[in-house]
Amino acid sequence: MSERVAAVLGVGPGLGAAISRRFAHEGFGVALLARSEESTAPVREEIERSGGEALAVEADATDASSVARAFERVRGSLGDPEVFVYNAGAFRMGGILDVSPADFDNCLKANCAGAFYAAQQVLLAMVERGRGTIILTGATAALRGSANFAALATGKFALRALAQSMAREFGPQGIHVAHTVIDGQIDTPRVRGMSPDRDESTMLSPDAIAEAYWQLHRQDPTAWTLELDLRPSVESF
Amino acid sequence: MSERVAAVLGVGPGLGAAISRRFAHEGFGVALLARSEESTAPVREEIERSGGEALAVEADATDASSVARAFERVRGSLGDPEVFVYNAGAFRMGGILDVSPADFDNCLKANCAGAFYAAQQVLLAMVERGRGTIILTGATAALRGSANFAALATGKFALRALAQSMAREFGPQGIHVAHTVIDGQIDTPRVRGMSPDRDESTMLSPDAIAEAYWQLHRQDPTAWTLELDLRPSVESF
Amino acid sequence: MSERVAAVLGVGPGLGAAISRRFAHEGFGVALLARSEESTAPVREEIERSGGEALAVEADATDASSVARAFERVRGSLGDPEVFVYNAGAFRMGGILDVSPADFDNCLKANCAGAFYAAQQVLLAMVERGRGTIILTGATAALRGSANFAALATGKFALRALAQSMAREFGPQGIHVAHTVIDGQIDTPRVRGMSPDRDESTMLSPDAIAEAYWQLHRQDPTAWTLELDLRPSVESF
Amino acid sequence: MSERVAAVLGVGPGLGAAISRRFAHEGFGVALLARSEESTAPVREEIERSGGEALAVEADATDASSVARAFERVRGSLGDPEVFVYNAGAFRMGGILDVSPADFDNCLKANCAGAFYAAQQVLLAMVERGRGTIILTGATAALRGSANFAALATGKFALRALAQSMAREFGPQGIHVAHTVIDGQIDTPRVRGMSPDRDESTMLSPDAIAEAYWQLHRQDPTAWTLELDLRPSVESF
Repeated sequence: MSERVAAVLGVGPGLGAAISRRFAHEGFGVALLARSEESTAPVREEIERSGGEALAVEADATDASSVARAFERVRGSLGDPEVFVYNAGAFRMGGILDVSPADFDNCLKANCAGAFYAAQQVLLAMVERGRGTIILTGATAALRGSANFAALATGKFALRALAQSMAREFGPQGIHVAHTVIDGQIDTPRVRGMSPDRDESTMLSPDAIAEAYWQLHRQDPTAWTLELDLRPSVESF
Repeated sequence: MSERVAAVLGVGPGLGAAISRRFAHEGFGVALLARSEESTAPVREEIERSGGEALAVEADATDASSVARAFERVRGSLGDPEVFVYNAGAFRMGGILDVSPADFDNCLKANCAGAFYAAQQVLLAMVERGRGTIILTGATAALRGSANFAALATGKFALRALAQSMAREFGPQGIHVAHTVIDGQIDTPRVRGMSPDRDESTMLSPDAIAEAYWQLHRQDPTAWTLELDLRPSVESF
Repeated sequence: MSERVAAVLGVGPGLGAAISRRFAHEGFGVALLARSEESTAPVREEIERSGGEALAVEADATDASSVARAFERVRGSLGDPEVFVYNAGAFRMGGILDVSPADFDNCLKANCAGAFYAAQQVLLAMVERGRGTIILTGATAALRGSANFAALATGKFALRALAQSMAREFGPQGIHVAHTVIDGQIDTPRVRGMSPDRDESTMLSPDAIAEAYWQLHRQDPTAWTLELDLRPSVESF
Repeated sequence: MSERVAAVLGVGPGLGAAISRRFAHEGFGVALLARSEESTAPVREEIERSGGEALAVEADATDASSVARAFERVRGSLGDPEVFVYNAGAFRMGGILDVSPADFDNCLKANCAGAFYAAQQVLLAMVERGRGTIILTGATAALRGSANFAALATGKFALRALAQSMAREFGPQGIHVAHTVIDGQIDTPRVRGMSPDRDESTMLSPDAIAEAYWQLHRQDPTAWTLELDLRPSVESF
C-alpha cells in the first residue's frame, strides 16, 4: 500500500497523463482510471520507468457500479486516495435537433454524474482522515452555453454545481474541493495531429495545468481556492 | 385544432396550473403534461369551466420516449405548440454520501434532460414558423451549489446551460428562449400545508410568476430577455 | 403636484424619452433630468402635447450637489418620485494607456456615482411610503470587461453592485430595485444616423425597453425581478 | 537599480507586507507604496534585515498625480516594475442614506480608480518588455452587493471589470493580469486585536495569500489564471 495515493479518472495521453505524472513525481502512488487500459498503459509504464508507482484500472465513468468496482480495486491495491481528480468527459457537438436523447444523456453522465459516483467512493475515507483534495476539470462551457454545445455545457455547468455543493459540504471537514475552468485547447497528440503547424503558445500545456493542480493541492487550508480559470496568454475570451 | 397552443410540462396545483390558466385566459389551447392525470385533471376542469380548452396528457419527463409520445398526442389533438414551458423537476435533498446514484441520475434527468427531450418535440414546428417561445423554470440552485443541494443544483445549472445554448441557436430563428430564476418558495397548497400561518407576502404568488411568463411571451423581438429572477420583496438573498 | 411622479435622469432622444413617454402615458407626472434642456425640451413638449405632465430639470449626474438641487426642484414642482430611472452614462473608448485619469473618473461617476447621488434624493420618501421603484439601466459591459471598454465596464459593474446593494437593503421595505442589462444597440437617431441602412430588427426598440421597465414597475411584490437582460433576437452574444 | 522589481500599492502590516516579503524573498527589489511611511517603514526594515531591498514611497491611491509621482520615484530608484500588486482599498460601511457622496466617491477611487492610475504607470515598460504581472486584490464584495456594503461593492465590482479589461487587452502582449477574490477576514494585527481569542484557522493567513500571488506570477503563459478565490476551509459562503 502506498503512503499517499492519488486517483485520476479520465487518463489519456494529455491532461490526465500530466496530472498523474505530477503527483507520481511528488511520491504519490497514482491510480489511473479510464475506460480502456489502452489509454492508461503508456502512462503507467512512464511512471514506473521514472521509479514511481501506478495502477491502471478500467472504469466507465458513466456507470456507477463500474466506478464503484474500480475504486474498490484502487483501495485494495494502493489504499484510500488522498487526492482525486475528475478528468473524464464526453461531447457530442450539434444543435438541439441533431443530438439524440441517448447521446445527450451520455454526455450529462460523463461530464457530471461520473464525478458524483467517484466522489462517493473517495469521500468517506477523506472525511475520516479530515483531509483530502478533489479537483474537477471544467471548461469554458461551464460558464456559457453556446449554440451546438448544449451536450457539453449542460454537463459542465452541472459539474461546477457539484463542485460548489461539495466544497460547501466538505470544506469545513478539511476536504479541499476545487473546480478548474480550462479555457482553450490543451496541447495533446490529438490536437497536434489536427493542426501540426499550430504554434504551441496557443495551446494549454498539460504540464502547466498539472502544476496548477499540484499547487491547488498544496494550498494552506486558510486560503483555499474553489475555482480558477486557466488559458493561454494569447487566447481571445 | 386550436389556433394557438401552449404546452406546459410539469403541471401540479401550483405554478404549472397558474401558467396554464394564464395562457388559456389569453385564448391558447393548453396541453397539460404531467406524470399522472391526478395532477392535471383539476387544472383541465378549471380551464374548461372558464370556457378555455385544455388537454391533459401523461408524460414522464425523465423518459425521452414517454415525452415523445406525449407530444405526438399534443400535436394530434391541439396542434403544434407555439409556447412551451418546462416546469418539471425533482429533488432529493442530502449530502453527497446520502444520495444514491439512481436518485442523482433521476434528478439530473427531471431537472434538465426532460427539457431537452421536450424541446426536440416542439422546436421543429417553431423553426418552420419562425416563431415560438420556450420558457424553462429555474431556481436559486441554478446559480449556486449548496451543501445538501447537489442533486438539485447539478440539474438546475444544467437547465440554465440548456437555455443559453438554445437561445443562442434559435433566437436568430425567431424563437424566444427564456430561463427564470425562482428564488423563494412558491405559494402552493403543499407549502401552505407545511406552514399554515405563514404570511403570504413571503411566498411567490403562482399567478404573479405566470404573469411574468406571459410578459416574456409578449416581449418585442428587439428586446428579448433570456433570464430574469423572481423573488418576494421580503426574501433575504 | 402630480398624484404619481416618475423621474428619469438621463433623458435624450432615445431610451430616456421612451421611458418618460411610457410613464406619462400611464398618468405619471414625469421629471426629465439631463445636463441640458436641449435634450429634454422635445420630450417635454411631446408629453405635454399628448396631454401629459412633464418637468424638464437640468442636472449633472456626476455632481452630487447638482443632482441634489435638481431633485429639490422635482419635489417642489411635481412631488416625491414614486419611480426613479437612472439612465445616464458616459464612455470614453480606448485602451488603458489611452484614457486619461480625468476621463476615467468622469465615466465612473456618470455610470455609477450619479445613480447613488440620485438614489439618496428619492429613497427617503419611498421608505416613508413603503413603496417605490428604482430601475438602473445597465449594459453588456456590466457583466464583462473587454479590451478598450475599461472606462465603461468599471462604472457599469459598479452600477450593478449598487443595484444589488440597494435591492437587498430596500426590498424588504417595499422598494423595488431593478437593474437591466441592455445587450445591443438601441435604435436612436444617433445610431440610425451612423448606419442609415441598418435593419431595425438588429437594434433594441426604445419603446420595447420602456415596456419592460413599465412591467418591472407593475410586478407583484411577491415576484420581483432584480435583473433582466434585453437584446434583439438576432443579436449574437 | 534592481534586476527585478515588484511594486505593491497598499502596504500595511497584513497582506501588503506578506506579499512584499514574498517577492523580496525571491530576489525582487520591492517598492512599498502607501499613504504614509508609518505603514511601510516596518516592512522595509524587515525586508532589509533579511538582506532584501525595499523602497518605501508615499502615494495616495485616490490621487492620480500622487500615484504618478510615486511611480516616478520607483522607476528612478529601483527600475521598472515587472510585478505590480494593487492592494489598496477603502470602505465606509452603511446604508445608502448613511454614506455621504464624498465618502462614496473616495471609496470608488480607492477601490478601483487607484488601480487604473497605477496600471498606467507600469504598463508601458511591461509592454515594451513583452512581460509583466499585475495582480488586483479583490473581495467577496466583487461578486455580490450586500446591504450596507454599497461603498465597497461598487468599487470592488469595478476593480474586477478593470482586471478583465486589462487581461483582455494585455494578455496577448505577454502581461499576466489576475484578480483575486479574498473571501473572509485576513489574519492581521487589527483583526486579532478586535477578537483576540479567534481561532486562526478561521482567518486567511497573509503568507498563504502571498504564496498564491507568487504562484500566479510563476504560471506558464499557456495556462494563466485571470481569477481565483481564496477562503478559509471553515468559511461559510
